[in-house]
Amino acid sequence: MKPTPQQHFGSDNYAGICPEVFSAMSDANHGHAVSYGDDEHTQLACDKIREIFDADCEVFFVFNGTAANALALSSLCQGFHSIICQQQAHIQVDECGAPELFTHGAKMLTAPGVEGKLRPEDVLRLASNPEDNFHSHLPRALSLTQNTECGTVYSPSELSALTAAAKQKGLYTHMDGARFANALVTLNCHPADITWRAGVDVLCLGGSKNGLGLGEAVVFFNKSLAKDFDRRCKQAGQMASKMRVLSSQWLGLLNNDVWRRNASHANDMAQQLATGIKAIGKININYPVQANAVFANFPDATAQALHQRGWHFYEFPGAGYRLMCAWDTAPETVEAFLADLNECLPSNE
Amino acid sequence: MKPTPQQHFGSDNYAGICPEVFSAMSDANHGHAVSYGDDEHTQLACDKIREIFDADCEVFFVFNGTAANALALSSLCQGFHSIICQQQAHIQVDECGAPELFTHGAKMLTAPGVEGKLRPEDVLRLASNPEDNFHSHLPRALSLTQNTECGTVYSPSELSALTAAAKQKGLYTHMDGARFANALVTLNCHPADITWRAGVDVLCLGGSKNGLGLGEAVVFFNKSLAKDFDRRCKQAGQMASKMRVLSSQWLGLLNNDVWRRNASHANDMAQQLATGIKAIGKININYPVQANAVFANFPDATAQALHQRGWHFYEFPGAGYRLMCAWDTAPETVEAFLADLNECLPSNE
Amino acid sequence: MKPTPQQHFGSDNYAGICPEVFSAMSDANHGHAVSYGDDEHTQLACDKIREIFDADCEVFFVFNGTAANALALSSLCQGFHSIICQQQAHIQVDECGAPELFTHGAKMLTAPGVEGKLRPEDVLRLASNPEDNFHSHLPRALSLTQNTECGTVYSPSELSALTAAAKQKGLYTHMDGARFANALVTLNCHPADITWRAGVDVLCLGGSKNGLGLGEAVVFFNKSLAKDFDRRCKQAGQMASKMRVLSSQWLGLLNNDVWRRNASHANDMAQQLATGIKAIGKININYPVQANAVFANFPDATAQALHQRGWHFYEFPGAGYRLMCAWDTAPETVEAFLADLNECLPSNE
Amino acid sequence: MKPTPQQHFGSDNYAGICPEVFSAMSDANHGHAVSYGDDEHTQLACDKIREIFDADCEVFFVFNGTAANALALSSLCQGFHSIICQQQAHIQVDECGAPELFTHGAKMLTAPGVEGKLRPEDVLRLASNPEDNFHSHLPRALSLTQNTECGTVYSPSELSALTAAAKQKGLYTHMDGARFANALVTLNCHPADITWRAGVDVLCLGGSKNGLGLGEAVVFFNKSLAKDFDRRCKQAGQMASKMRVLSSQWLGLLNNDVWRRNASHANDMAQQLATGIKAIGKININYPVQANAVFANFPDATAQALHQRGWHFYEFPGAGYRLMCAWDTAPETVEAFLADLNECLPSNE
Repeated sequence: MKPTPQQHFGSDNYAGICPEVFSAMSDANHGHAVSYGDDEHTQLACDKIREIFDADCEVFFVFNGTAANALALSSLCQGFHSIICQQQAHIQVDECGAPELFTHGAKMLTAPGVEGKLRPEDVLRLASNPEDNFHSHLPRALSLTQNTECGTVYSPSELSALTAAAKQKGLYTHMDGARFANALVTLNCHPADITWRAGVDVLCLGGSKNGLGLGEAVVFFNKSLAKDFDRRCKQAGQMASKMRVLSSQWLGLLNNDVWRRNASHANDMAQQLATGIKAIGKININYPVQANAVFANFPDATAQALHQRGWHFYEFPGAGYRLMCAWDTAPETVEAFLADLNECLPSNE
Repeated sequence: MKPTPQQHFGSDNYAGICPEVFSAMSDANHGHAVSYGDDEHTQLACDKIREIFDADCEVFFVFNGTAANALALSSLCQGFHSIICQQQAHIQVDECGAPELFTHGAKMLTAPGVEGKLRPEDVLRLASNPEDNFHSHLPRALSLTQNTECGTVYSPSELSALTAAAKQKGLYTHMDGARFANALVTLNCHPADITWRAGVDVLCLGGSKNGLGLGEAVVFFNKSLAKDFDRRCKQAGQMASKMRVLSSQWLGLLNNDVWRRNASHANDMAQQLATGIKAIGKININYPVQANAVFANFPDATAQALHQRGWHFYEFPGAGYRLMCAWDTAPETVEAFLADLNECLPSNE
Repeated sequence: MKPTPQQHFGSDNYAGICPEVFSAMSDANHGHAVSYGDDEHTQLACDKIREIFDADCEVFFVFNGTAANALALSSLCQGFHSIICQQQAHIQVDECGAPELFTHGAKMLTAPGVEGKLRPEDVLRLASNPEDNFHSHLPRALSLTQNTECGTVYSPSELSALTAAAKQKGLYTHMDGARFANALVTLNCHPADITWRAGVDVLCLGGSKNGLGLGEAVVFFNKSLAKDFDRRCKQAGQMASKMRVLSSQWLGLLNNDVWRRNASHANDMAQQLATGIKAIGKININYPVQANAVFANFPDATAQALHQRGWHFYEFPGAGYRLMCAWDTAPETVEAFLADLNECLPSNE
Repeated sequence: MKPTPQQHFGSDNYAGICPEVFSAMSDANHGHAVSYGDDEHTQLACDKIREIFDADCEVFFVFNGTAANALALSSLCQGFHSIICQQQAHIQVDECGAPELFTHGAKMLTAPGVEGKLRPEDVLRLASNPEDNFHSHLPRALSLTQNTECGTVYSPSELSALTAAAKQKGLYTHMDGARFANALVTLNCHPADITWRAGVDVLCLGGSKNGLGLGEAVVFFNKSLAKDFDRRCKQAGQMASKMRVLSSQWLGLLNNDVWRRNASHANDMAQQLATGIKAIGKININYPVQANAVFANFPDATAQALHQRGWHFYEFPGAGYRLMCAWDTAPETVEAFLADLNECLPSNE
């Protein structure tokens, strides 16, 4: 069996726009609409997010996750503040200085945590710089990634313990929810349980990794932090003129639970992958598979051989090779990959 | 006759995505594609822009015009530099400090020019701060808007004279081409004639006002200025992960001359509007109508009455009321507006 | 008569450190002192400023006036805010983008006012951008220069009217008091009358133009605006390690009314200059001489001839030639200058 | 024996201005001098630095070390670049985000090295992010501290090996020379041997820790990096108007080898301290004592007892208690401290 054409495990952003989102964008593409968000699609999308989270929150749509994180953090921090995060966090490793640029100098304080998850004791330790030491950045925000960069998921109680530690040290809590939906369906809880009810002040709700063409939503549960956020977006070049192009996609994703179905499917495919890899039996899987990623210790030669057969996936130093499933990953693709993997292992050559 | 539903003269960004662009985006939405621009759609779109401009230029796709302008200028200027522009320029009036943010403090030096167009003498005068006066910003860039915020168009020779003045003073030339296509079809010249052959170093080529859903292209004819621009985009939150969503739209717009047809149509509608207004006979039109905008001195009561009939358009202090036509403005909409306008004039009430 | 050696009218910062300040710095230069401001000299200097202004204000010492202004404004404004100031204000003309850098993009909105002074109607007009227009900077601060760049002085009632206009528009008021002492002695009022009693939120109190070697004090009457200002200074490279070197100079200047005597003397010398110029009879003086500057319309040839005789002074386009008196300007220097001026006038050649 | 009044081991910036520097400042404080550096004192001080380093370098005087480091790095790096430094470096730990602010987001990449010194292999490893990975900062500068924060000194050959590694990776080399003189006298070499001849591009030459009242010099051996540095200083609020107040101090420090004598004395006092501590016999000294600091593992109770006797010194987590000697530390003060130390040790209580 050959791999389904053009499907890979490189990233969930290799996938295209899911059909429901595409349809919603198409439906909204008629006639004229007032620009910069003063249109009905945007209103409906914001209301839908308020309904989903059961919260009177402030909602803004920006173009990508880097911007969402950096602008949200710039609402919490000034340049002389620091941000506590796990050492593999996207804001630390993969945003080329966006948080530092938009906060005007804030510094990340990092800890490895366990299985990609920070622990309350990490927060307490990293936030110990006393208020009166003005030589160092003043800790101001805790940033949590749900699910984590390791594909693990924080439980509601873990989140509550972390935000309690943050509050004890006077920190706001930001959540990078690039893959929030994947965590949500794993936990099978109410979205509020892993956000505002667990003490999260602002959530960057990911869309592009779960079926949108582009765009993330910045959701302020702590509304006082949203002051002037529209101007912040405008100044940062993150205010879409044809806002309905973004917001209609969100409607397509959030209505009828598409976002949950997409995430569930991706998670299921990761489980199928992990099960298959375990069945093969010689490959260590590095973290509990709780969302849509599998980190596996392939021999390098095996990885090379798989690349030569056309499979895309990336190495994460210290964490093995990452196999990422998307809303559109087909079970047949997983099976084809597993078959190739089996053939590419050293003992089978 | 009633206005065509949901069509207005508020802005060319009130319009949706044109059919050819939507189709191209749909066509590209299959299977997996490598993210961050390393895909075939993006390669094709860049090549198409090089072909159109007959230039070995560097091309980058960002999310909107504010970002395009601010990031392009940040490649030209540091915070202690100044930028010469017309006083109504978008970078001066409508970007809420984006150029200042991304350049880290550069200052706009402005002149009114004539009919929205800067003149070489304006450039020479504004750039007269001597190099050894470090108390003030050092002039470093000329920013020209084609077509202008007043709906007027620079000729190739006007542009060449301006960029010659800029070069004489050691300035780079940036072009805000949010409505570049509208100018191009008016001039009926080669795109190179009003860009690199006229001395332009970097063009922000507009798409969202001409049929795209979102996105602008930053085109460096002076390739040395493009150094590290990908990192600059990434740090600014302007690097799309699913880049094909942007680049496929560009392919839809640029292939088969759709961009020229869209712009021609919008310009024609502006002519129809201007002709109709002149025929009514009591309303002054403020600038030569050379692109897709008409600035008309309606009595305020007339404007109010038109607003009450459901028409959207904006007042520009000192320039009257702006009527902006889009790629989808219907001739019937123009006629319906003119009829309502006639009825709303004082003498007819 | 020859000019007193090495005295000029170039600027009040051409003068050295006045004797009382030098002595105080010398007196403080014994033994070890805790660094970064936790020393007795700094405590005494802060208390002295509180006593002088009869206010429980927060006081910080920074290295120069550009830093004082830019950091104070950065406490009031974010990058999407605008600052209203007179068009010749130092923050607009002479700080090479420091306010824009430290505020991360705030924009100056300027008016010419009358005789270098803004009027309440200027403030109301410039601050008219509505809160809900996020395309432009949101007005947030009024910056007044006391005395003005034209050598004129705002009265307490003028200041109160201006800050009332500011408050009406939701603006904070910053005062650039680089030459505050010169205004104070002209008005012969209590320092509180032209600061917090007149509605000023934060004052940058100048020292280097009135006898200090370097340094300005940032005085927050609105203490809530001073939050984290020590960290802001530290991050900006404006926190002196040997703080007593700055603060002891302030003690030398403020104790025994040295600051008033220095300023009075400089103002008197400006009056002597102005009287002498008027007596010569052919030269227009551009503004009321209310502080330590005289702006005179010398013929350019006369200015050139004076420069050749060794006199330093600068041309201010549109305002003539500026003659600036310092704490150490000798009456004999004034007389020598007037004699040379008389000889260099066209009719006398 | 009692401690010499008001002497401590808290920091070398607890000391005042040394007599030769004070005299030079006094000598320069006559008459008027052109401001902003266009005066003879400043010219002489720049020339003296060129003579000392035997180099045609560009020299700028700024107010403190944080500003010197941050502005020098901002000439080398943009916000999407990273800077390699030892993990205790001042730029990483003690500047509250100044480097991040002035570079607009550059990131520190740190390694512990050995005894406070980076090794070439650390540089090669940290700089391994490939040029085409735009998700992370691009390594651009190596920053070395001479002497180190641990009081150790890089030899010329160690520096050459480090800058060779930097060059191999395309990095510039910055040296934080806050205590450069202390390293110089230890090495007893030519200043060029540990700067430009060893591959250093720009040196921040410290003054305030070696007898100046305030001020550091930024010395560009790679002159192309100094382009527009005067404007950079001006915009940052780091351009002194009465520049002679800074530059005359430098003349006092550099003429007649005062800077070397001051540094030698401080180093000698550290040796005396270390010898005395070793003689007491129960206290571990953490790093080789190669400059003016001793890091000693006092029992916490001993440190407390010494503090109660009036001694100032600080704890450095992981490195024990730091005893820092200054240009004015008296041998009697060292002896008094050692006597108190002996009395405060547990076994003696």
